[in-house]
Amino acid sequence: MTRQLYELCGADKTVRFSPYCWRTRLSLAHKDLPFETVPVLFTEIPDIAGSDSPTVPILFEADMSRSDSWAIATYLDETYADRSSLIGEGAAASLARFVDNYNNTLLVPGVAQLIILDIHDMLDPADQTYFRESREKRFGRSLEDIQAGRDERVTQFRSSLVALRRTLEQQMYISGDDPAYADISVYGTLQWARCCSSFQLLETDDPIALWFDRMTRRYDVQAQTAW
Amino acid sequence: MTRQLYELCGADKTVRFSPYCWRTRLSLAHKDLPFETVPVLFTEIPDIAGSDSPTVPILFEADMSRSDSWAIATYLDETYADRSSLIGEGAAASLARFVDNYNNTLLVPGVAQLIILDIHDMLDPADQTYFRESREKRFGRSLEDIQAGRDERVTQFRSSLVALRRTLEQQMYISGDDPAYADISVYGTLQWARCCSSFQLLETDDPIALWFDRMTRRYDVQAQTAW
Repeated sequence: MTRQLYELCGADKTVRFSPYCWRTRLSLAHKDLPFETVPVLFTEIPDIAGSDSPTVPILFEADMSRSDSWAIATYLDETYADRSSLIGEGAAASLARFVDNYNNTLLVPGVAQLIILDIHDMLDPADQTYFRESREKRFGRSLEDIQAGRDERVTQFRSSLVALRRTLEQQMYISGDDPAYADISVYGTLQWARCCSSFQLLETDDPIALWFDRMTRRYDVQAQTAW
Repeated sequence: MTRQLYELCGADKTVRFSPYCWRTRLSLAHKDLPFETVPVLFTEIPDIAGSDSPTVPILFEADMSRSDSWAIATYLDETYADRSSLIGEGAAASLARFVDNYNNTLLVPGVAQLIILDIHDMLDPADQTYFRESREKRFGRSLEDIQAGRDERVTQFRSSLVALRRTLEQQMYISGDDPAYADISVYGTLQWARCCSSFQLLETDDPIALWFDRMTRRYDVQAQTAW
């Protein structure tokens, strides 16, 4: 069976925007594992045969399915242990977990509040109703209200990333001389914004933006995007 | 020459409160290295013979002095490589750097704004003028104004620690099954508050508070404090 990755797509099915799917996409690139990509809408996820995961990414390999980007990376490390590690073991793995949590609890909601209406606007009409209802319930406000004032709020967002910025002033990657899962996790969040929105999250000379460019080249991300 | 650690003290010279000195104190405990402690005031640091460091901790060992808690931990790892590692190497070291930056840029200023007047009040009168002038200049407000409203603001502080909390719900220590420098760094910040103030930073059932208690027992911190 071919290795298949189910990924969220927009109205333009070549646009893969999910931060979590990007984590798995780059995890597979990190392990140098080819895969076939299968675009799905939010509203199509329940219909994916062979998996009961409510979320993507879902990776099919060797007649089994795996979901959750962290769990998939762990699986890839175990299965392809002879290839460059993603999460690794011991203290490195535990500290990567902290970075993943930092990303999930600070960056992901921070970015969401800057581009959430742009995300909505690039979705397939079949997904727009689901997205608006679920996100407006989560935030307690309309998508328009959440995104309002972002030109002023982005300054606070940039300031909130000081720990990440300082680290990337001191070393090439979050994981050191070479990237690993901690980098891939954070990259997915910024790549999500890049795929959904033209809003400028970071100043061009921000050490985080320079690291993002290094990651884009390192994993040849441009070649993976059809748009 | 005896191993000596120069540490900030309060008006009560047995109270060692500096978050950075606690990092070195626990780094030495982690390596199981005995040391003689030398209390100093802020205003006495320039007079320490054999070092031109403007800050403590300063560690004297083998006729050399080292300052900066991260640099001291690196030195201890190199010199006592056969003992349990603090920062380690490779990805683990680079990710520990991120946690250290997170601590320095989020926790340290967050805690400072909740207890800064309490810190002032426990200092030796010789240090109080220096402390007030330098901190009021840094924050652009009086110590009283900085600390005002902390009963309300502490909720926001606790919320800001969500990445740390989630990590400690998933694993025993920030560094995994056993503590290492990332834990020690963060511990120093909370121990600083504990030494200077009776203000309750965390709810007692917060996973961060439970981890703090584990660390206190692991390094037998009570036995190191005379108060």
